[in-house]
Amino acid sequence: MTDWVYIFGGGKAEGTARDRDRLGGKGANLAEMARLGLPVPPGFTIASDVCRHYYANGRLLPDTLEREVEGALDALERLTGKTFGGETEPLLVSVRSGSRESMPGMLDTVLNLGLNDRSVEALAQSSGNPAFAYDSYRRFIQMYASVVMGLDPSLFEDIIVRVKKRCGAARDGDLTAEHWGAVIAEYKTAIADEYGEEFPQDPEEQLWGAIRAVLGSWMNPRAVTFRALHNIPESWGTAVTVQSMVFGNMGEGSATGVAFTRDPATGDDGLYGEYLPNAQGEDVVSGMRTPHPLTRTQVNGSGLVPMEDSMPVTFQELREYAKRLENHFREMQDIEFTVEAGKLWLLQTRDGKRSARAAIRIAVAMAEKGLIAKTEALRRIDPASLEQLLHPAISPDVERVVIGRGLPASPGAATGEIVFTSEEAEQLRASGRKSILVRPETSPEDIHGMHAAEGILTTHGGTTSHAAVVARGMGKPCISGAGSMRINAEKGVLVTGGRTLKSGDVITVDGTSGEVLLGALPTVQPELSGDFATLMEWADEIRRMKVRANAETPEDAITARGFGAEGIGLCRTERMFNDEERIRALRLFILADSVEERDRILESMQVMQKADFLELFEIMRGLPVTIRMFDPPLHEFLPRPGRETEQFAEAVGMDPERIRQKAEDLHEINPMLGNRGVRLAVCYPEFVDMQARAIFQAVLEAGEKTGEKVVPEIMVPLVAYEREFKFVKDRIDVVAAAVMEEWDAKIEYLVGTMIELPRAAIRADRIAESSEFFSFGTNDLTQSTFGISRDDAGLYLNEYLRKGVIDRDPFITIDVEGVGEFMQMAAERGQSTRPDITLGICGEHGGDPASIAFCETIGLHYVSCSPYRVPIARLAAAQATLAMRAP
Amino acid sequence: MTDWVYIFGGGKAEGTARDRDRLGGKGANLAEMARLGLPVPPGFTIASDVCRHYYANGRLLPDTLEREVEGALDALERLTGKTFGGETEPLLVSVRSGSRESMPGMLDTVLNLGLNDRSVEALAQSSGNPAFAYDSYRRFIQMYASVVMGLDPSLFEDIIVRVKKRCGAARDGDLTAEHWGAVIAEYKTAIADEYGEEFPQDPEEQLWGAIRAVLGSWMNPRAVTFRALHNIPESWGTAVTVQSMVFGNMGEGSATGVAFTRDPATGDDGLYGEYLPNAQGEDVVSGMRTPHPLTRTQVNGSGLVPMEDSMPVTFQELREYAKRLENHFREMQDIEFTVEAGKLWLLQTRDGKRSARAAIRIAVAMAEKGLIAKTEALRRIDPASLEQLLHPAISPDVERVVIGRGLPASPGAATGEIVFTSEEAEQLRASGRKSILVRPETSPEDIHGMHAAEGILTTHGGTTSHAAVVARGMGKPCISGAGSMRINAEKGVLVTGGRTLKSGDVITVDGTSGEVLLGALPTVQPELSGDFATLMEWADEIRRMKVRANAETPEDAITARGFGAEGIGLCRTERMFNDEERIRALRLFILADSVEERDRILESMQVMQKADFLELFEIMRGLPVTIRMFDPPLHEFLPRPGRETEQFAEAVGMDPERIRQKAEDLHEINPMLGNRGVRLAVCYPEFVDMQARAIFQAVLEAGEKTGEKVVPEIMVPLVAYEREFKFVKDRIDVVAAAVMEEWDAKIEYLVGTMIELPRAAIRADRIAESSEFFSFGTNDLTQSTFGISRDDAGLYLNEYLRKGVIDRDPFITIDVEGVGEFMQMAAERGQSTRPDITLGICGEHGGDPASIAFCETIGLHYVSCSPYRVPIARLAAAQATLAMRAP
Repeated sequence: MTDWVYIFGGGKAEGTARDRDRLGGKGANLAEMARLGLPVPPGFTIASDVCRHYYANGRLLPDTLEREVEGALDALERLTGKTFGGETEPLLVSVRSGSRESMPGMLDTVLNLGLNDRSVEALAQSSGNPAFAYDSYRRFIQMYASVVMGLDPSLFEDIIVRVKKRCGAARDGDLTAEHWGAVIAEYKTAIADEYGEEFPQDPEEQLWGAIRAVLGSWMNPRAVTFRALHNIPESWGTAVTVQSMVFGNMGEGSATGVAFTRDPATGDDGLYGEYLPNAQGEDVVSGMRTPHPLTRTQVNGSGLVPMEDSMPVTFQELREYAKRLENHFREMQDIEFTVEAGKLWLLQTRDGKRSARAAIRIAVAMAEKGLIAKTEALRRIDPASLEQLLHPAISPDVERVVIGRGLPASPGAATGEIVFTSEEAEQLRASGRKSILVRPETSPEDIHGMHAAEGILTTHGGTTSHAAVVARGMGKPCISGAGSMRINAEKGVLVTGGRTLKSGDVITVDGTSGEVLLGALPTVQPELSGDFATLMEWADEIRRMKVRANAETPEDAITARGFGAEGIGLCRTERMFNDEERIRALRLFILADSVEERDRILESMQVMQKADFLELFEIMRGLPVTIRMFDPPLHEFLPRPGRETEQFAEAVGMDPERIRQKAEDLHEINPMLGNRGVRLAVCYPEFVDMQARAIFQAVLEAGEKTGEKVVPEIMVPLVAYEREFKFVKDRIDVVAAAVMEEWDAKIEYLVGTMIELPRAAIRADRIAESSEFFSFGTNDLTQSTFGISRDDAGLYLNEYLRKGVIDRDPFITIDVEGVGEFMQMAAERGQSTRPDITLGICGEHGGDPASIAFCETIGLHYVSCSPYRVPIARLAAAQATLAMRAP
Repeated sequence: MTDWVYIFGGGKAEGTARDRDRLGGKGANLAEMARLGLPVPPGFTIASDVCRHYYANGRLLPDTLEREVEGALDALERLTGKTFGGETEPLLVSVRSGSRESMPGMLDTVLNLGLNDRSVEALAQSSGNPAFAYDSYRRFIQMYASVVMGLDPSLFEDIIVRVKKRCGAARDGDLTAEHWGAVIAEYKTAIADEYGEEFPQDPEEQLWGAIRAVLGSWMNPRAVTFRALHNIPESWGTAVTVQSMVFGNMGEGSATGVAFTRDPATGDDGLYGEYLPNAQGEDVVSGMRTPHPLTRTQVNGSGLVPMEDSMPVTFQELREYAKRLENHFREMQDIEFTVEAGKLWLLQTRDGKRSARAAIRIAVAMAEKGLIAKTEALRRIDPASLEQLLHPAISPDVERVVIGRGLPASPGAATGEIVFTSEEAEQLRASGRKSILVRPETSPEDIHGMHAAEGILTTHGGTTSHAAVVARGMGKPCISGAGSMRINAEKGVLVTGGRTLKSGDVITVDGTSGEVLLGALPTVQPELSGDFATLMEWADEIRRMKVRANAETPEDAITARGFGAEGIGLCRTERMFNDEERIRALRLFILADSVEERDRILESMQVMQKADFLELFEIMRGLPVTIRMFDPPLHEFLPRPGRETEQFAEAVGMDPERIRQKAEDLHEINPMLGNRGVRLAVCYPEFVDMQARAIFQAVLEAGEKTGEKVVPEIMVPLVAYEREFKFVKDRIDVVAAAVMEEWDAKIEYLVGTMIELPRAAIRADRIAESSEFFSFGTNDLTQSTFGISRDDAGLYLNEYLRKGVIDRDPFITIDVEGVGEFMQMAAERGQSTRPDITLGICGEHGGDPASIAFCETIGLHYVSCSPYRVPIARLAAAQATLAMRAP
């Protein structure tokens, strides 16, 4: 081993798989395979340190590199018995890039290097196949001219077309060695004309040109962009692997292919892949020929001959190597191989890409076999990928006609007729038809329509807009902010890219991708048992944080329990006012003139609310339930101006002017910053009393019915001042005392607050003096920390992402530097005055894996998320626990 | 001196004026006067510690108090030669409250205590005036029954009315001793009936009853409310002063009155006040008799006889005592006195209330005389009181018909015809008539109307709403949030308390009090020279912080300089787009379809903006000018839907549908959290370029014209991310470099940011790496810290104040515990990476004295406020400097 160059081959190697950082993924794994005694064409890898040196020193190579490479070439000649530039057994090599992380297709490669006017003759003789030899030579020239010399590839395509025409050949394969000779002659002329220099005949010169080209490609624009997108540091650099060539296109006994150690779609154990007889790797990639399956199982009536039958001995050898590699790397492998005149060579192995389903199956199977630890199995699954498994998806094979795009606001797929109002959605549902609710944006008024529709499409709003949040809560697909689509409500049409769709036209929304598709598309349903369930069990054994769900309807609570939620972390009581009777009561409350009228309405509401809470407590059977007091501004619940107001006024026998007047009184320019949360509670304390009484009565009834003790966690939202929290808590305590006296029973309960304003974070020590728990409302905390409305942010946040001003949307992943500092501050300050305070999160971030990892670092006790994200959160929480254990 | 009781009288006293905390203001000053040898009726004060003890121990008095009070009564008997409960020379006492701060009329008082069925006879004999003695007794019974026994005072009024009717007496004075005897008999019967116990004859019992009643009154509801309103802690408690009675109603040689050592309205030196011959203090207060002036100067043609003439000797004595007291306390005094049968007694002295004008005159006069230091003169003036002097005020003597009330949003008074639209305001102005603009709320569209009107009245919005902020900036009176008044725009009327006013009716708005008044009322103009100017000079010598003004128009800049501003701290460039031509250009920019169209409009805007900046720079002549880049959301500038849109569309020849579409695209649910400030700059960087270029060109032109170097401070608003600031700063730097090259000239300039979001505060260290100054935008910082919209907060913040959840409106005075912590954090973090960073404040709080005091504690370099508040800020800054010097 020298400073810069690492040799492998002949059962030995100077590096191992652990040298990935220096040798790149490809080089490290080739070294490892050589050590394992697997048939790897010998070669050497120039470490990525050279790349760093190259860019740190004005594109100069290290002084000693040339000597080291010469030494490595000598070793290669010894190992292969061939000579670089030799006239009898010429050593030909490939020169490839190899970074620490795969950057497929981004960096350059040169094959067949070492050929020149003389060695091509030698290759023709040694292979006994002159056409192959000349074809190889012209391929090399073409690749070298484009990669190293930077010439336009079309130059060469034109020449081939001309020659084929001249000699009446239909396909490349029809060309003879002589034809190729003519092509080569024209190539060389073209190069001399365009580049001003002859094509180099000296293999050493060729080699250094190729090495410099591969290093140079590290900074090409598409590589720079790719790294930016995938957070790969520029400083990593690329290694360069020089490897002796083997040929899968030397005739009948030759082939090339790709093998997975397991089925990448299903995770089923056993070799899986494809191959092409008599072909080079690029032929497989180019798609000009249809590859054959590797195994009989794969044939599946296609009539193609599998390698298992056409090359049974080599196939068994490949199968054995594949098994060894998988066992060695303890991971499903993706192997490139070539058969050169009956001899099997392995060119590359790496961890195989796979579907979410396969990933789980493989990880679980390997852990059960003892190949990897359960913790390793957990680490290997991307929690976000579970999303695919939890919702219906569009069948992968159908054709998709994309008519619009928006934000993937709530995953899953659904088909239905376009409706533009919630009323139409309900009418269609009543007549057994399916609909997609299409609106500029949604409001609480639309909840019934969202319930009735199969999916939601909005032209405004971000991934945390009302539509998005509610749809995720319902587990319905939603696309938000489809800005290129326009609703013309008057005409009742949706205009998109020149196409005009009307009410009743059928579309499919793919909330996972954000695509709006024409027509009805078939979907596949999720499956959650088996390996998935096993993985979840393991996650539950490991994780420290509990996982609760945001739920208020019985359906949501049942879904949440089904997905393994350990309680309700957020019951938004205002959503309990969505049905017609409730919203009517609420409106009458808002419009009431006298205290007596209000009291009468509150009494009727209390009966409804008690029934709501009782049902939730019964479903949750003693698990914690956090109930948030009524939160949104009241004006959201008044009928909309115009027809809706008039209808309501008529229904209740009220002067519509009174409603209009009230709406004007309650109008707010910035409702998000308006009379909400604890402010409502201070202004209308009798409403708090009503809700508290309903909760406490339900606690006692549920206790009697289920035999499980219920300890409700009553949550006051939007607190900024310690005194406003205390004001509301005092009311709740008074109600509790009264109910306990009336029922002659004891009730345990907690009263706590949300931390969703910067002031609450900074005053958390004082607030915790009376608040028994904190739940981070990170949606609002993000809004107030940034002064951003999540409903309106889509437009400029996208511009920020586009211009590189921000790396990620703070509404999706917690902004650790800002919002995160507030969370940490609040946690620490809260614990300073109440060491046993319970800390949780109930914002949308509670279901985001990166955010969950952050929550673990500040010691939250639980995360709460929408029911459909509970499994994701369970896995992410387990990974977060593991991450904290790591050194 | 014992533990709880402090005796005074006979030229000696156990306490001094410095014992205010224990003895209350009244008790401490009585002790001081006794020590000075002034004629004070002897007495003793029960310290406020007793009040604290009383409430901390379930309303029990300290064990040793009874013995101490007995000792003090003995001393009193010795000093007066009278006997408590005695049958010949009865000692009568008053029992009064006395807190550290004056709480006028809030706590209880009992006079003439010690009278009973026997001592009243003695008093009748010793005074030689039985009617006086019996009247005093019945007054005592009546007061005691109401204050100590809690009986309804009307009970006693009824009896007097009956007796007067029975004996045919028209006035109380017509009743004889016998009549009063009959009244007393009926009183006693009524008390026995109502209270169930006889009226106590034992003076000791009377005394303890009165002491307990005074202590008890500390917690009566009106006292609790008063303390809440004036931030007086409950823990202070009240002292109780028991003092021997003197009588001003003993006949012709007797009188009672109040004397100020200077004229409280003007501050002119010399005795000023009023008195009533043959009367008790309550007669002066009740207003049943018209008091006479003290001095000849005061007579002013009223025909009343001044004390100077009616009791010349006593008057001279009073004048001498008054001068001694003023010199002793080094403050203008407000003295209560009684003349009992020719003998002058001083009953109380305290610092006198005075008008703002008088306060300045007195402080300056005293400092110039060397009675107090200049710093003390500065400390004595409430900066907020200067407001009265800086704006026209309604003449104090006219009758006010209040037809509505709102928030005092911008001080001053103005009269005009009601107009409901900005257009009408302009029309009236054009025809030389004055108007008051009445609107639900105002928007940037109304600026021209606000300019044209004399004053503004809105029915919505708080003291920091658009209307309020803009009006203060213009120095026009404004009342906001007059919620009891309703605008019916359709009918063109303003409805208030049953009264309906229409367009053209004349009203007067008093922006200082928040009162809406019927008709035209005369006003008095401000005067800013003389003592005022002297005081300002002294303030300027002392203060550390600079004072700048928020100004963008030439008029404002000139006003600001006139008031002593040392620069512009906030030039809101969006306000430069208010005139018709500008707003039209801005609209066309927003509506432009192509880059070319935009560029063309920007070019024309640049010409206008350059002229704006040039004018400002010329007025400010080298003083610093902070220019804020365009801040509000663009949709605020589009024409309003309906008629305005159609008119605009027609004027520019555009399809109104295009405007409607744009308005929909730009619509924001929460504009305060929307696409504003730096976000606009990132989305429309060409607009930043235009503004930057206009600034730099104006800098060079102004430099040439005035010969003063201009160093503009360019400010980027609403920054949350360090990278978004950097993005904009880079653009500005590029423009600067280009202008410098084109002109071949050097420009010095600063680029900085506002700190108005919690995230900016927490990331201030990183932001300061590229930001050369910080200006705290405390309006927005308060909004985002609390999650409160200042436009909508009025309603519930008032509820919060009413319910005692908060002590003060955070939009008026900086919330030190929350917003203040962010400011301190930002200042410290900013200085950690840029030690010489300039720190200022440009929010509304920059003109609030309490907030200015806070700014001094965190070391800001300047405050900036509206031009009309500059003098207030100068004085407040001086006081803040002094406060930091204090031990």
